[in-house]
Amino acid sequence: MRLLIVNPNTTTSMTAKIAAAARAVAREGTEIVATQPADGPASIEGFYDGALAVPGVLREIAAHPEADAVIIACFDDTGLDAARCVTEAPVVGIGEAAFHMASILSNKFSAITTLSCSVPVIEANLARYGLNARCVRVRATDIPVLDLENEDSSTIDRISAEIRAAIKEDGAEAIVLGCAGMSNLMDRLSAEHGVPVLDGVACATTLAEAIVSCGLKASKSGGYAPPRLKKT
Amino acid sequence: MRLLIVNPNTTTSMTAKIAAAARAVAREGTEIVATQPADGPASIEGFYDGALAVPGVLREIAAHPEADAVIIACFDDTGLDAARCVTEAPVVGIGEAAFHMASILSNKFSAITTLSCSVPVIEANLARYGLNARCVRVRATDIPVLDLENEDSSTIDRISAEIRAAIKEDGAEAIVLGCAGMSNLMDRLSAEHGVPVLDGVACATTLAEAIVSCGLKASKSGGYAPPRLKKT
Amino acid sequence: MRLLIVNPNTTTSMTAKIAAAARAVAREGTEIVATQPADGPASIEGFYDGALAVPGVLREIAAHPEADAVIIACFDDTGLDAARCVTEAPVVGIGEAAFHMASILSNKFSAITTLSCSVPVIEANLARYGLNARCVRVRATDIPVLDLENEDSSTIDRISAEIRAAIKEDGAEAIVLGCAGMSNLMDRLSAEHGVPVLDGVACATTLAEAIVSCGLKASKSGGYAPPRLKKT
Amino acid sequence: MRLLIVNPNTTTSMTAKIAAAARAVAREGTEIVATQPADGPASIEGFYDGALAVPGVLREIAAHPEADAVIIACFDDTGLDAARCVTEAPVVGIGEAAFHMASILSNKFSAITTLSCSVPVIEANLARYGLNARCVRVRATDIPVLDLENEDSSTIDRISAEIRAAIKEDGAEAIVLGCAGMSNLMDRLSAEHGVPVLDGVACATTLAEAIVSCGLKASKSGGYAPPRLKKT
Amino acid sequence: MRLLIVNPNTTTSMTAKIAAAARAVAREGTEIVATQPADGPASIEGFYDGALAVPGVLREIAAHPEADAVIIACFDDTGLDAARCVTEAPVVGIGEAAFHMASILSNKFSAITTLSCSVPVIEANLARYGLNARCVRVRATDIPVLDLENEDSSTIDRISAEIRAAIKEDGAEAIVLGCAGMSNLMDRLSAEHGVPVLDGVACATTLAEAIVSCGLKASKSGGYAPPRLKKT
Amino acid sequence: MRLLIVNPNTTTSMTAKIAAAARAVAREGTEIVATQPADGPASIEGFYDGALAVPGVLREIAAHPEADAVIIACFDDTGLDAARCVTEAPVVGIGEAAFHMASILSNKFSAITTLSCSVPVIEANLARYGLNARCVRVRATDIPVLDLENEDSSTIDRISAEIRAAIKEDGAEAIVLGCAGMSNLMDRLSAEHGVPVLDGVACATTLAEAIVSCGLKASKSGGYAPPRLKKT
Repeated sequence: MRLLIVNPNTTTSMTAKIAAAARAVAREGTEIVATQPADGPASIEGFYDGALAVPGVLREIAAHPEADAVIIACFDDTGLDAARCVTEAPVVGIGEAAFHMASILSNKFSAITTLSCSVPVIEANLARYGLNARCVRVRATDIPVLDLENEDSSTIDRISAEIRAAIKEDGAEAIVLGCAGMSNLMDRLSAEHGVPVLDGVACATTLAEAIVSCGLKASKSGGYAPPRLKKT
Repeated sequence: MRLLIVNPNTTTSMTAKIAAAARAVAREGTEIVATQPADGPASIEGFYDGALAVPGVLREIAAHPEADAVIIACFDDTGLDAARCVTEAPVVGIGEAAFHMASILSNKFSAITTLSCSVPVIEANLARYGLNARCVRVRATDIPVLDLENEDSSTIDRISAEIRAAIKEDGAEAIVLGCAGMSNLMDRLSAEHGVPVLDGVACATTLAEAIVSCGLKASKSGGYAPPRLKKT
Repeated sequence: MRLLIVNPNTTTSMTAKIAAAARAVAREGTEIVATQPADGPASIEGFYDGALAVPGVLREIAAHPEADAVIIACFDDTGLDAARCVTEAPVVGIGEAAFHMASILSNKFSAITTLSCSVPVIEANLARYGLNARCVRVRATDIPVLDLENEDSSTIDRISAEIRAAIKEDGAEAIVLGCAGMSNLMDRLSAEHGVPVLDGVACATTLAEAIVSCGLKASKSGGYAPPRLKKT
Repeated sequence: MRLLIVNPNTTTSMTAKIAAAARAVAREGTEIVATQPADGPASIEGFYDGALAVPGVLREIAAHPEADAVIIACFDDTGLDAARCVTEAPVVGIGEAAFHMASILSNKFSAITTLSCSVPVIEANLARYGLNARCVRVRATDIPVLDLENEDSSTIDRISAEIRAAIKEDGAEAIVLGCAGMSNLMDRLSAEHGVPVLDGVACATTLAEAIVSCGLKASKSGGYAPPRLKKT
Repeated sequence: MRLLIVNPNTTTSMTAKIAAAARAVAREGTEIVATQPADGPASIEGFYDGALAVPGVLREIAAHPEADAVIIACFDDTGLDAARCVTEAPVVGIGEAAFHMASILSNKFSAITTLSCSVPVIEANLARYGLNARCVRVRATDIPVLDLENEDSSTIDRISAEIRAAIKEDGAEAIVLGCAGMSNLMDRLSAEHGVPVLDGVACATTLAEAIVSCGLKASKSGGYAPPRLKKT
Repeated sequence: MRLLIVNPNTTTSMTAKIAAAARAVAREGTEIVATQPADGPASIEGFYDGALAVPGVLREIAAHPEADAVIIACFDDTGLDAARCVTEAPVVGIGEAAFHMASILSNKFSAITTLSCSVPVIEANLARYGLNARCVRVRATDIPVLDLENEDSSTIDRISAEIRAAIKEDGAEAIVLGCAGMSNLMDRLSAEHGVPVLDGVACATTLAEAIVSCGLKASKSGGYAPPRLKKT
């Protein structure tokens, strides 16, 4: 099957990292097509960046009608609802995927994200999905998204410290990594902390495969009906 | 004071109707500047239209830095969170304004919107605002947005029938009109049905005036922090 | 228009302070009539004081049938539901008004009140309005209400310290001042802390003006129906 | 032990009926002292009646300091929070008692009350107690409270019809009778409908006995702290 | 009346302690029959122990058809829903009973349990009952259940320390003791901390008496219908 | 990889149907091991059957330590929490899997189950998972589980009628089939009704594959810690 992974920002090194994380968990027969908008924000930090990225995300989806499923590879699940209106293929956000899987692996979890301006975005998503009761706390590390690209150890140390706090203070039984830029840290941090540490890219890739294998498509009834043609 | 009202769609007759509804309730000293994006969807019906309208809405806000407050005049509160990131002026959505005022005038209310594809958009907003417990039901009339522009009586009859059902079946004590295109019907329907019938444009206009009079500005801490400059 | 502001306690210096706060934000044409019950508790600290104050509040409302809107000027929104049964004019509580406005200006806020016995009162109100998801925490300063009348600096320091804690620990993006006796501190504290600090008296005054400008009245259907006459 | 039952309205025939219902279930050693305020509303129908009844209720409680527990015998739990501030004895509302017991006997229940103006009062209470998720629906019969005093069969028929609807349409597994005036109908309606039909007076009487037997008193910490003495 | 108290674990010293706690609060005419399964876990610590204990609990209930009410004496309310399917007698869990009573005595409470693996069990129950909004926090003392049988002072000190923290940090107005093995500590800890400290065994015993006195039985409609006979 | 699918009831024809449904969607390299307890209820209809089935389910899991993931193939997710305590392999319930996937494919969905005694079981699960806000309604068809084994057309007609009602009355955008015995109907009903119709067996099989591909294991911290060894 063919999975289209749209990195909603324009940073190609992040797209490459995301594609690698997806390929590391995808089945043999799955083709990963990773792309990003031609223009838009270089990273998505908060509501504004997210809103500006959506039209580009929708154009990338429209440009790949052959995709069996679509993954939106920003932890904020940028443009998820709109994307579901323009394709019959299932659309999976990496935030959403991680939250659903963490709900299966633990009684409650915490999420570790980058800047504090992203916390309300993620909290709003959790409430929308109904999973806010399962997420004890969304924690910010105050690491800008693009700083994750040069993986110095102090960055990882800060994430690790926040994970330790989540386990101790929040009673978190699992950790969700709240940025696509952290997708290479899942195994290392799982091993270090002894609880499941989930990366949304891996979760979304395999969850999209799962939905496609079931032969399921997105609902076209109600909120995700195709947009009506209108005379301008 | 100067209020910027952005109609997120490109239909200028709707902008005119919205401006008239705002001026009908605004104070003497308030200047209403009504505008709409240069391009984008002609009406906003569902998540997809909404997402495409946001960049234009943000541009209109950026083009009017002198505004003391900003009103987003689509009942879906299109781009509300992103808009709050780009200005210090308070930003009020017409959906949000109507929900808050209806919560003050009644124990519970119902909303009457246009197409059923808008129902989940509005339900998601209500949950986000915390006011879903106050809104018994969001009802669709299956009237396309632009059909409201030619006000034939059958259209109003359908809205009226839905209001009657909301009062009887939902126990609604107030009614929120779920489309900017209905903003000229508030008084007529209030009189007809004997319960408050709220139009979001009127609610948002006066609520924006209220916030400005208090000298309050939008929070720039946390989720609405100004977007960081990033090298693309 | 004429706004009736009822201070539910009998302390006339508080009524004067409340009236001043209301006049500071009201429109030119708005007449502020500020009053308080002839007898009842001198301050409202907790459920008991609140309950005893209500009959006096209702009498004040009945004595001013010419009011276009009514404001109940205790942060506990004392007698709000009962008041809505006895008048067609919209009735706005200062707690409620501040919560609704804070929800428009921020993703989440905290409230700073006086004694800890008021915390469950306010929490119950927030749940009733549906806005408990928006208020991170209600914090007590342990300052008795009437101590706010002699504004020594240590009192303000304690409020300021609690605001700092709310921003840091709760991630609050806005602060609601949880007592009518703090209504003169809004501007000073907003400037000091760099986030919106809302005083309910200002919020309710302008919100009442807003509702009146819309021509809206309280619902008389359902829970706020006028009390039936009964033979005793 | 001595239980004080306060009927918050001034209708002595209702007090007598309530006392009889309490005595029918009380233990041998329990003395039932039933009383009502000297003045106030003749029946409690909605928020306004409720608010006016509270000071009288509080006076009755103060007049009976020897009570081991206090029962407030209006289904709206009139003045419950305030009552808890003025006595160390546990205070139990009949609405609350019925909701708690129904939660133990069924997965979900419906409540059948008198006038529709009481529905939002009861819904607000359910939300306050946290038991709104257990109560599928609050149904009004449109029978005025005092009409229950002359028990004609048409009244009972209307209640019965509503119970049938609750079982069929709401999936209610138990029924809560939403008025102290229905307290003589519990057994008859339980037998007729084959599901538990709970009368709040019986539930509160035995629940108060239960709490006293445990040696428990109301919390005096936080919201129910005794009112502070204040100089007026 | 006859109350069957089933200790879901096989530790007979705990059954004896539970029976004593029940007899200490039961009415004169109440016969307490305390029992435990013949085999199963020696203590119930977490989901697994709980699941294994249920069949034995159901057998004990079936073996005592003469019981007027049944109490399940593990704070996790082990097998509560299943038990309600096999008897018409009301079934009361000690966790549930304590939560309901604490909701009547306080605005909010905290629970103090044994091991941290029990915390999610109790949190899930609270959500199921709808009372999670009333319980601020479930706290673990890390004392294994059976260590409570040899009551050394360090054990009680740890519980006491946790109660102090709950009052101070959680604003808890009452405390629920989260293990049947703590049932002898209710009076001592209430006196020490000046807030109601509730033991589930006492609460459930008297609550079961209350329900029986009302003549109420468990609903047999819907979820607690008797199991259908099936050919294997 | 090896997936262990435990049918919690003892009806081997259902196990065979479940295994076939799993194999129809599983990847090439996945080995499906389908089993059922040696004794226990022949079908699971309600809380009682569910509780009795759990020990057998746990024994089957213990007997297959080589499984990479475990699926519990009853829509009630029988014993899910306990199962997670006894293995490090991820454990997925078919109800849970269908709810999570339906949340990704639609804004809201309804579930169609067998007998009405199962409705509260499923509703309790939905609340536990946090997904009750996404499921509009759980509908019973009043078809006993084992009647699904002889697939006569009237059975399917009844399910189809309920799906139609869910789409029309509930606004459901997707349908979850609420019984493992319906797992062969997914494709047919999806095609007939034009909305996604999800079978939990297919969803859980592919979701388990997804989790295993991510290298994730169940959390062993907190509620799913391995049971402590205790001296009996």
